[in-house]
Amino acid sequence: MKVGILGGGQLAQLLAHAAYELGVETLCLCERKDEPASRNSPMLLDDGTTECLKEFAHKVNVITLENENIAIARLQFLAAHRPVYPGIKAVAVSQDRLFEKQTFTELGIPTVLFKDINNETELLSAWQDFQQQALLKTRRFGYDGKGQLRLQTQEDVQIAWAKLGTQPLILEGFLPFDFEVSLIGARNVSGQTVFVPLIHNTQHAGILRTSIAPFLDRHLQEQAEQYMQTLFTHFDYVGVLAFEFFVKDGKLYANELAPRVHNSGHLTLDGANISQFHLHLLSILDLPLAAPRFNYPTAMLNLIGSLPDKKEVLKTSPGVRYYDYGKEPRAGRKLGHLSCMAKDEKTLRHKIKTLREIL
Amino acid sequence: MKVGILGGGQLAQLLAHAAYELGVETLCLCERKDEPASRNSPMLLDDGTTECLKEFAHKVNVITLENENIAIARLQFLAAHRPVYPGIKAVAVSQDRLFEKQTFTELGIPTVLFKDINNETELLSAWQDFQQQALLKTRRFGYDGKGQLRLQTQEDVQIAWAKLGTQPLILEGFLPFDFEVSLIGARNVSGQTVFVPLIHNTQHAGILRTSIAPFLDRHLQEQAEQYMQTLFTHFDYVGVLAFEFFVKDGKLYANELAPRVHNSGHLTLDGANISQFHLHLLSILDLPLAAPRFNYPTAMLNLIGSLPDKKEVLKTSPGVRYYDYGKEPRAGRKLGHLSCMAKDEKTLRHKIKTLREIL
Repeated sequence: MKVGILGGGQLAQLLAHAAYELGVETLCLCERKDEPASRNSPMLLDDGTTECLKEFAHKVNVITLENENIAIARLQFLAAHRPVYPGIKAVAVSQDRLFEKQTFTELGIPTVLFKDINNETELLSAWQDFQQQALLKTRRFGYDGKGQLRLQTQEDVQIAWAKLGTQPLILEGFLPFDFEVSLIGARNVSGQTVFVPLIHNTQHAGILRTSIAPFLDRHLQEQAEQYMQTLFTHFDYVGVLAFEFFVKDGKLYANELAPRVHNSGHLTLDGANISQFHLHLLSILDLPLAAPRFNYPTAMLNLIGSLPDKKEVLKTSPGVRYYDYGKEPRAGRKLGHLSCMAKDEKTLRHKIKTLREIL
Repeated sequence: MKVGILGGGQLAQLLAHAAYELGVETLCLCERKDEPASRNSPMLLDDGTTECLKEFAHKVNVITLENENIAIARLQFLAAHRPVYPGIKAVAVSQDRLFEKQTFTELGIPTVLFKDINNETELLSAWQDFQQQALLKTRRFGYDGKGQLRLQTQEDVQIAWAKLGTQPLILEGFLPFDFEVSLIGARNVSGQTVFVPLIHNTQHAGILRTSIAPFLDRHLQEQAEQYMQTLFTHFDYVGVLAFEFFVKDGKLYANELAPRVHNSGHLTLDGANISQFHLHLLSILDLPLAAPRFNYPTAMLNLIGSLPDKKEVLKTSPGVRYYDYGKEPRAGRKLGHLSCMAKDEKTLRHKIKTLREIL
């Protein structure tokens, strides 16, 4: 059994990691030879041609992805040769913030106010409708806070239009949320579904910095699982799905979807009985899924831009797990992550504080 | 940083697995192209020449091994170019049952009765001294019960001599032990040591079948750690050391050493806060070690000779972790292992029983 992975970043690398444990081979379709997954998986260099896609498809049994920003035409081509999971419908929707929010609304999942924007007049009018508190975002290719601007003054509106006006846009009402959580769930080919306990996320400058789990709130957990179940059915979804929510006054508001393993789920690697990478592989191979749970309160800290000294980290916080993706340092780039566990949340918060001081 | 691993079996594979997480590269020196580690690590094909060893040494920063049966001359050659851990002295001793037992005795570590055997007369005489209850073993290359015969009658003695008499031999008094445990410990280059809680092992036909941990016995734990600490100092040891003991009437008797990660330690992968593979890498890279502990009672079941159906296993026992080393099935061959955890030992024993029924 060989799983083809579109992409060669750290998510592909961690998927390959889990695949070998299961005796499953991988082949990553990479744009460059030195991508992280090339260190632990065979890869095929993507020259952009259809021949290359065909070769890739013929070399594997099933195809999945680590990044949703793949041309739908390419996925359709691949799907004619091999099963492609999580499925084209889910990928197409998650590529576009407008389609995502339309889907949420259509399925009765609460989300923020939103309006598609086609010209500056529409932008100004919608911004006023949204109480002059809004975010202008590109519909596509936004990640880690890229392609979005906060609009608080009329001047912000003009600047934002000048910057982003050439792209398809969506205006979203700004929700002064209390905090953010994500739900990681998985559905296998046979339709079995499991959900990871909610993960509490903290962003900084649009990039995920810290995730802590389990975030124990029975009501929010049930609500989030119900929303994800609705999406699973709607998309006939297969694999891991990550669903980010804002929480305001004890209510969930859908923010965005990632039809793949997700940064906030990395803490399942060390803190849970089963990782999101295993869940994804078991799902696409149609193997039975175990109910995920955390052994201990667990935290994940992203290492961004530069890597701290391993010796110092491991000395300061014995037992911390240090993940180094093997990437070249660059400002704002995710180079690795740390995970740590503690017997209770108070001790965990103390550990996080100590680690933050040396990051 | 690149770690060279002598060998390409499942232990090398699982070491490479842990190395990538730490951003450390590996290069495995393999005898065949299709060894398990070739799936997730670059490898160099070992043609047996000194040139090949030299090339290997020059391509890596530090060298370690997954199997102690390596010609000492080769290790000495490598050690002239790069640090070789755990060190030649420890490897030389652990290659030979006689040297092992002599070392135990010299260091005051209780072990079974033993006598080196050079001819049939010595064998018969020693067997009588040992109350006619003994095991004749080859001094070298014995593993998984290979190269050893139980001697209960005079006829056994004659047959055993006829079978093994051409090799260097040791006669060991048969100890009707109550059970077997192993201690996994690690010592880094700076001399920091940590120990995993004792692991309870069950063999069948000389091959490890089931390991369960933590085996909680404060007295035995302290005693075992003290013995291992003595060995660490004696050998100026670096890396993971596995130490197998017989337990009889609450006392430990040293059985054998493995100067490397060990099959009985596989359950640290899923059940503990840190795995033996991480501990080994951190040790040889001189990084700080965390104190290992088990999150839950954990069991490891070896998959020998043939692999059970993944779907059936995962359905019968949700949450079990299935490791498939990707090896060709063959009678008596270790092809993979299962690990499972439970909230208490009673539940764990029930899980093991259920799994045993489908193996």
